[in-house]
Amino acid sequence: MNADKIPDIIIGRLPVYLRALQRLSDKGIQTTSSQELGEIVGISAAQIRKDISQFGEFGKQGTGYSIPFLIERLRDILKVHRVWDVVIVGMGDIGHALARYNGFANRGFNIRMVFDNDPNKVGQRVGEFEILDMNVMAEKIKQNKIKIAMLTVPATAAQEVAEQLIKAGVRAILNYAPISLSVPPGVKVQHIDPAIHLQRMTYYLD
Amino acid sequence: MNADKIPDIIIGRLPVYLRALQRLSDKGIQTTSSQELGEIVGISAAQIRKDISQFGEFGKQGTGYSIPFLIERLRDILKVHRVWDVVIVGMGDIGHALARYNGFANRGFNIRMVFDNDPNKVGQRVGEFEILDMNVMAEKIKQNKIKIAMLTVPATAAQEVAEQLIKAGVRAILNYAPISLSVPPGVKVQHIDPAIHLQRMTYYLD
Repeated sequence: MNADKIPDIIIGRLPVYLRALQRLSDKGIQTTSSQELGEIVGISAAQIRKDISQFGEFGKQGTGYSIPFLIERLRDILKVHRVWDVVIVGMGDIGHALARYNGFANRGFNIRMVFDNDPNKVGQRVGEFEILDMNVMAEKIKQNKIKIAMLTVPATAAQEVAEQLIKAGVRAILNYAPISLSVPPGVKVQHIDPAIHLQRMTYYLD
Repeated sequence: MNADKIPDIIIGRLPVYLRALQRLSDKGIQTTSSQELGEIVGISAAQIRKDISQFGEFGKQGTGYSIPFLIERLRDILKVHRVWDVVIVGMGDIGHALARYNGFANRGFNIRMVFDNDPNKVGQRVGEFEILDMNVMAEKIKQNKIKIAMLTVPATAAQEVAEQLIKAGVRAILNYAPISLSVPPGVKVQHIDPAIHLQRMTYYLD
């Protein structure tokens, strides 16, 4: 299995399948079908079968997929069978919300440290975290070999902070600043910008 | 130009182009090329030319695109030359962050009302808004003909609240609850779930 061979668009759907399977599992359900899964996630059963078959043979005709087995396999493929440490940079409203968000539990991520450069914020507590000074950010990230950051600084600062993070060893950035980041090959970026998501829907409205 | 004929994947890229063009325009820049735009947004110049050509002839060989003209055209295509009223449902941390977020200005959206069902929150102020009771949500949405909602309620409540919104006339939901929503044809949903975005990146990490 070569990571470069599987289209990114399929990789993008796997976390959605995993989330749905986890919810079925939480309800004590042990098996599912591509039909059932498709109805939950709003993707055709044929597409789901095709996506899942990229990674080997799962499920049998007539008996469907074993949910625990498929969860295990997807967690393995997405590398979230382990827990990744994550830092949050920028402790405005969104940074606060993320630091206190409980939706990362059991999904492979652990918020490890949070940073800001505002002297009035540094040293304050947010949930279980003390806000650390961005002056020590690069050092802390290197020491702890952290690979993932959530970036919630203003748009004007985002590119510069991203470069500091990458230099310190970060390889995946979830960017909440409303700006496209320019990053070197080998660094992944995902963007969360509510206006972009809304504009994608207004196209279809009257 | 038929909305059904343009692949959704292209529609998904147009808001990203628009954001980049707007930033160039804010700097006083009047023209750009598919190369320059491609470097900003991390998409190939060929792909950008192909996407933009779906909507007609823009730019001339050698002179590039007129930024004001392309912005105007994209805003028109995405229907954000007008301003859409939006409601926020669920005033937890994320709801608060969205209510106070200033990134919607000039991008086609106006937060109009915010709702919660917690008696301790109803009547409280968040920024310029008074939190309204979800009991009056359907009525207010109908009265004001609101088509767009941002849903930031717990996962357990999300499907039920989405159905109330749709019954009241909402046609586009930006869902922050970590659950896939089931909606009828003609209703658009976009999901924002940071764990999903992070899992999409860990696949590529060592």
